[in-house]
Amino acid sequence: MKIGIVGGGGRMGQMLIRQVARTEGVSLAGVTDRDGAAAVGQDAGLLAGLGPLGVAVTVDTNALFAAADAVIDFTSPAATPLHAGLAAQHQTALILGTTGLDEAAEEALAVAALSVPILKAPNMSLGVVLLTELVERVARSLEADWDIEIVEMHHRHKVDAPSGTALALGEAAARGRGLDLADHAIRSRDGYTGPRPVGDIGFATLRGGDVIGDHTVVFAGQGERIELTHKAQSRDIYAVGAVRAAQWCAGRAPGRYSMVDVLGLGQ
Amino acid sequence: MKIGIVGGGGRMGQMLIRQVARTEGVSLAGVTDRDGAAAVGQDAGLLAGLGPLGVAVTVDTNALFAAADAVIDFTSPAATPLHAGLAAQHQTALILGTTGLDEAAEEALAVAALSVPILKAPNMSLGVVLLTELVERVARSLEADWDIEIVEMHHRHKVDAPSGTALALGEAAARGRGLDLADHAIRSRDGYTGPRPVGDIGFATLRGGDVIGDHTVVFAGQGERIELTHKAQSRDIYAVGAVRAAQWCAGRAPGRYSMVDVLGLGQ
Amino acid sequence: MKIGIVGGGGRMGQMLIRQVARTEGVSLAGVTDRDGAAAVGQDAGLLAGLGPLGVAVTVDTNALFAAADAVIDFTSPAATPLHAGLAAQHQTALILGTTGLDEAAEEALAVAALSVPILKAPNMSLGVVLLTELVERVARSLEADWDIEIVEMHHRHKVDAPSGTALALGEAAARGRGLDLADHAIRSRDGYTGPRPVGDIGFATLRGGDVIGDHTVVFAGQGERIELTHKAQSRDIYAVGAVRAAQWCAGRAPGRYSMVDVLGLGQ
Amino acid sequence: MKIGIVGGGGRMGQMLIRQVARTEGVSLAGVTDRDGAAAVGQDAGLLAGLGPLGVAVTVDTNALFAAADAVIDFTSPAATPLHAGLAAQHQTALILGTTGLDEAAEEALAVAALSVPILKAPNMSLGVVLLTELVERVARSLEADWDIEIVEMHHRHKVDAPSGTALALGEAAARGRGLDLADHAIRSRDGYTGPRPVGDIGFATLRGGDVIGDHTVVFAGQGERIELTHKAQSRDIYAVGAVRAAQWCAGRAPGRYSMVDVLGLGQ
Repeated sequence: MKIGIVGGGGRMGQMLIRQVARTEGVSLAGVTDRDGAAAVGQDAGLLAGLGPLGVAVTVDTNALFAAADAVIDFTSPAATPLHAGLAAQHQTALILGTTGLDEAAEEALAVAALSVPILKAPNMSLGVVLLTELVERVARSLEADWDIEIVEMHHRHKVDAPSGTALALGEAAARGRGLDLADHAIRSRDGYTGPRPVGDIGFATLRGGDVIGDHTVVFAGQGERIELTHKAQSRDIYAVGAVRAAQWCAGRAPGRYSMVDVLGLGQ
Repeated sequence: MKIGIVGGGGRMGQMLIRQVARTEGVSLAGVTDRDGAAAVGQDAGLLAGLGPLGVAVTVDTNALFAAADAVIDFTSPAATPLHAGLAAQHQTALILGTTGLDEAAEEALAVAALSVPILKAPNMSLGVVLLTELVERVARSLEADWDIEIVEMHHRHKVDAPSGTALALGEAAARGRGLDLADHAIRSRDGYTGPRPVGDIGFATLRGGDVIGDHTVVFAGQGERIELTHKAQSRDIYAVGAVRAAQWCAGRAPGRYSMVDVLGLGQ
Repeated sequence: MKIGIVGGGGRMGQMLIRQVARTEGVSLAGVTDRDGAAAVGQDAGLLAGLGPLGVAVTVDTNALFAAADAVIDFTSPAATPLHAGLAAQHQTALILGTTGLDEAAEEALAVAALSVPILKAPNMSLGVVLLTELVERVARSLEADWDIEIVEMHHRHKVDAPSGTALALGEAAARGRGLDLADHAIRSRDGYTGPRPVGDIGFATLRGGDVIGDHTVVFAGQGERIELTHKAQSRDIYAVGAVRAAQWCAGRAPGRYSMVDVLGLGQ
Repeated sequence: MKIGIVGGGGRMGQMLIRQVARTEGVSLAGVTDRDGAAAVGQDAGLLAGLGPLGVAVTVDTNALFAAADAVIDFTSPAATPLHAGLAAQHQTALILGTTGLDEAAEEALAVAALSVPILKAPNMSLGVVLLTELVERVARSLEADWDIEIVEMHHRHKVDAPSGTALALGEAAARGRGLDLADHAIRSRDGYTGPRPVGDIGFATLRGGDVIGDHTVVFAGQGERIELTHKAQSRDIYAVGAVRAAQWCAGRAPGRYSMVDVLGLGQ
């Protein structure tokens, strides 16, 4: 099974190259990067700190999709429509770790999913996917007088708040409660807030150092608390999940899939 | 619906009296304590720091079971066979928070459960019951290369380690893995331990101050951790659960029940 | 030594009555409440859930200050100038747990401190006072490339964010760094924030359930974190600290004092 | 300033090579490994995943000490007497990260410290050194009725419990209390333990996954807890500290030094 990587010169791209190289049963279909990027022309293996792999980084995205059974994309939302179109055209599964898609990008994915398997996930770590499932389940089990709060910490370079994963956890909680998150999210607190509204879902954001990503969902009842936590110690976990998703999706029926499907948690 | 309380003079007994008094739809069938206990003869309400309830604490356990629809028992294992027998004789549901039962006590419960509803739980807080379910579920979902560790902290007066709740969490984890906890428990570590055996379930115990009870189950994988935590902030949560269990059990078919049944988590 | 309590009918007032009653070497000089409050005329002991103490709650604040060696005040900022004036007039030490004072109140305290001992603290728990000292010390020891974040959780009824204690911890951190907190506080985050500015001090606020008060100060460096945490399990700790402060202040030279002085941490 | 590394072929050795290479003002005096080790004869830079550094790994420890201003040693206790002797002979500072030294090794260090600077530390991360200082300080400030507990988690390959760092934290706590840790350590708990003895210091050990090292010291009082935590996210922090120690020690007066001296925390 052959996996292609777009945006191979970035930090995530290099991790994906290494993960493909060390996973049995898969090989590298090719690697691309933006025209003018420093990585273009280099050997993908050397770029990723391995020995040479004999695969040069190119700018030919069309050829990449043609050669691959699945393509992994952690680049930017602006590229999503193009990649979705190429996936459909070449019958290539598309694994998308990009967040912040606009409507046009979502529409392009919906169209592509009519002819190929498409998997999009804000966070591909096994642990986060499992945590998200647990949060929905607990939110469904508990009465609304258990207050739900989501706190996360990431490194100082992260530019948005709350994290995409925190928002996805909030959506899982809202789903479990049968609510719409947009109507019930308290995204931050400052000054006079008044008493906490029943049923709302609160967020709190910390930034500092080089923390990869910690998330905790607190369910606070009368006299007791349940806390569900995920701690990422290595960015490898995202590459592990992405390659596992690519293996699972390649050759599957057209449609939209999620990490829950990949991990078989969906019963 | 009428609830009886054995051992009403103790700290847990007094909490149960208060919880029955403040719960709608239930009333106090009676309260007993050991012959010679200071509480005997006192008004149960005054004993519990409420106004007078017109119910004096007696030593007549037989009359208590005769008068109650359900009896709540947080006394000692030695009293379990007697209470089980009286429950069966008077068709009274029995809610048992006692831990450390011997075989004779378990046998007495099995016999009584042929004619009345019996519910035994090492921890009746809603949060702990839910946590126990989550632990079993996560242990079932994750491969054996995720190491499971259980850490708990209780106040300085607690005399046994690990806590009954920690052991119950360990049993839930073992059940999820299809293992027998007795063969895979590491109850403590000291000195040269060697590398951690795959599949074992570790325990760690802290004691100090007046901590009511904190439990965390850690699932430690490669590059990530999931942690599931319960924090008890008030002992009220145990009385709340016990009275809720009594309400649920009274009038139900004979048999053994658990807090999972009471909370409807069992689908 | 005689302690007076203003606002004795409230939850904090009742805790102070109980704490005075159980502390050796002190007795209750009197208890007051607002004109029209339900507590007025009641026995202070019965009000606080104890046996009768023979001290009726009155509205005569002047007589209270006249009779007491120290008065403890957890009422509202509006009452501070009056209480400061009465303290000076009657040579009574004043222990103030009120937060959110305006300039007039601060000025009244400054004047009173010329003739009597005045102690004001946003949080009188021994643990929080010690934590505040540690935070200043650690902030002084570490380079500015260790990012400082403060996260706190309180019950759902709390109406302001961040908590007064969180802000006091932030001020300790800023003091350690030689900065002005007002210029460097990030009181919440939402949306596009950009990379974290070096040297800023971040806050994150959680609300839910009946959590009494948890505070954590995170120092996030490259490859490591230090976290300093305080967890309040009982509101008693505030009453314990207030009575201890009253004992320490009574009879001392005029001036402004802090809990650091009371606890002897100030070397 | 020239730094030598013994045991350069191991994981820690390679990290030290990389840290020396990226630190301004220092260069590599040489690198050795055991006779027969795979690293012998290789270029130290290539071994460590860098470009070639032109320094081959040898087995000549004597030449290494002769060429270096300071040598960093994270090898085994058995090698300590030899390294201490060579340090004294060649007037080379010795930075020792080895733990579990026997009496002969300690004696060799004491002798060497008469003629050269010797620094030994169970954990060279800045954060842990600072935490250790805080623990001693807090233990000194709090009454003995605050119970002290130390909990740590490390990866599944660690073979001893509690960790050397946990024990060093326990020693700092005992020092603050004026106690001897050996007489007051509870190294683990299992079964019937009885109530917690006043003044003892408890340990709890977790093992799992690839956790680098988390340590928390809990001070548990009545109604409140203080928790001081260190989380290691990268092993780089140990190499950073070791190279910083080597820079600080080289050329200093003979004697025993600690990381507290290096970091200037000792006033």
